[in-house]
Amino acid sequence: MQEHTRLPIGLFDSGMGGLTVLNAIAQRLPWEDLLYLGDTARLPYGTKGRETIIRYTLLAAKKLVERGMKMLVVACNTATANALPVLRKELSPLPVVGVVEPGAQAAVTVSRNGHILVIATEATIKSAVYEQAIVRLRPSALCSAKACTLFVAMAEEGLMQGHIVEAMAHYYLDDLLCKGPDEKPDTMILGCTHFPLLKQTLAEVVGPDVTVVDPASNVALAVHRELEVMGLLGDTSLKGKYHFMTTDNQERFARTGSLFLGRELRPEEVELVDL
Amino acid sequence: MQEHTRLPIGLFDSGMGGLTVLNAIAQRLPWEDLLYLGDTARLPYGTKGRETIIRYTLLAAKKLVERGMKMLVVACNTATANALPVLRKELSPLPVVGVVEPGAQAAVTVSRNGHILVIATEATIKSAVYEQAIVRLRPSALCSAKACTLFVAMAEEGLMQGHIVEAMAHYYLDDLLCKGPDEKPDTMILGCTHFPLLKQTLAEVVGPDVTVVDPASNVALAVHRELEVMGLLGDTSLKGKYHFMTTDNQERFARTGSLFLGRELRPEEVELVDL
Repeated sequence: MQEHTRLPIGLFDSGMGGLTVLNAIAQRLPWEDLLYLGDTARLPYGTKGRETIIRYTLLAAKKLVERGMKMLVVACNTATANALPVLRKELSPLPVVGVVEPGAQAAVTVSRNGHILVIATEATIKSAVYEQAIVRLRPSALCSAKACTLFVAMAEEGLMQGHIVEAMAHYYLDDLLCKGPDEKPDTMILGCTHFPLLKQTLAEVVGPDVTVVDPASNVALAVHRELEVMGLLGDTSLKGKYHFMTTDNQERFARTGSLFLGRELRPEEVELVDL
Repeated sequence: MQEHTRLPIGLFDSGMGGLTVLNAIAQRLPWEDLLYLGDTARLPYGTKGRETIIRYTLLAAKKLVERGMKMLVVACNTATANALPVLRKELSPLPVVGVVEPGAQAAVTVSRNGHILVIATEATIKSAVYEQAIVRLRPSALCSAKACTLFVAMAEEGLMQGHIVEAMAHYYLDDLLCKGPDEKPDTMILGCTHFPLLKQTLAEVVGPDVTVVDPASNVALAVHRELEVMGLLGDTSLKGKYHFMTTDNQERFARTGSLFLGRELRPEEVELVDL
């Protein structure tokens, strides 16, 4: 087991969105090495069918297993929603952490009226995993859900604020939020790792009565706890190293990835891999 | 050769956009059978790198060859821009028609001042094939080009008009169109098969001085001519049959495909295939 603690934490996402989760983990566990794989050749997963998502996710996990890791973080809501049970079974005994359960926990903790709105990709909404996780944690909770497909492309385009994003947010959310105080959700989960880039605009559009929850920091907490429980925590006196892999177009991964990472990522830092 | 005339025309696109080309061919050649393959499992191609696009396009073409066809229409600008020469070489002597050359021809024909604006995906713009085709046909022509990535997701979402699409069009195009009459393009090519769904809104935004060119009808003309030249024209007394194949999520293909086809497409009409 001693040897294992030195291995990196593996992170997987369909593209660059998972870098928002990587950021949160890096902030909480700055001594851990992180190995990130974005399957950009086949993104987005959010509009694909369940079987296809499972197949692609397993291929990506296999690549990370080959490289060596002590834990897998599925830093993609769509992959978590559709493939987490299969991944846990296939990779056992390697610990696998998804983003949905921590996101649901965070929302249930902050919600006062128990009415929670989930915004996510089409495939995540269709899976209904957020609703299931929320009701498991708080059986009286009421859930609304909305697929906000275009937010993914907007975040990747770097269109994070301004009147177009606002108009798009109103287009998706007005029906759900223009309700009386009893029916209106007081919490909104950003159920796609792309959406934190739009967080400021979304928070303005939904107003101060609605708490916007980004699952990422709670995912980092879950990772921290799981590493402790498994005795896999790294040497806290070190400084973690990061390695990035993409299945397509390093230049685009670096350019768009910089938006998600909040610092410049150069194409030379990104390794091109085939699954 | 007699036998060959009865085979369908194969059409390939990364997704549903190519159905706008299918429509144009069906209108011009209503007696021909059409076999359509949309590689929805791996769309969009427009943000991918060249090698990946070529690899996926060859896989799709191979599937259509297995099914039997007398001609391949690459009903996707990104695939045409990046993979047409490779496809022609690999499939020879099967005729292969792309969308770029007919689109460039149509634009050169209608442009008065010879200044032509191409809007397309990132990968098509990067390839510069439209500019090359235009300058080959009219050496004095001046080309502008703009990647309009979000129009793809908007068309797939069924967001074809209204203030959000208008705002998005201004965001992409104002810099290129707010120029003096001498510098302003008088022709705009819809260099992505998704964009015809937004044509009405785009035409309003660019104004009456700019002719908006959808290559589809000129592609249908090129297909017609090529079939004649090759002696491959079908029996004009028949009524053509259509068959649709997708690599993922028949339900979504049918739902979004209906927008592009302009008639209801049911999931039962769509065959799921693996490449």
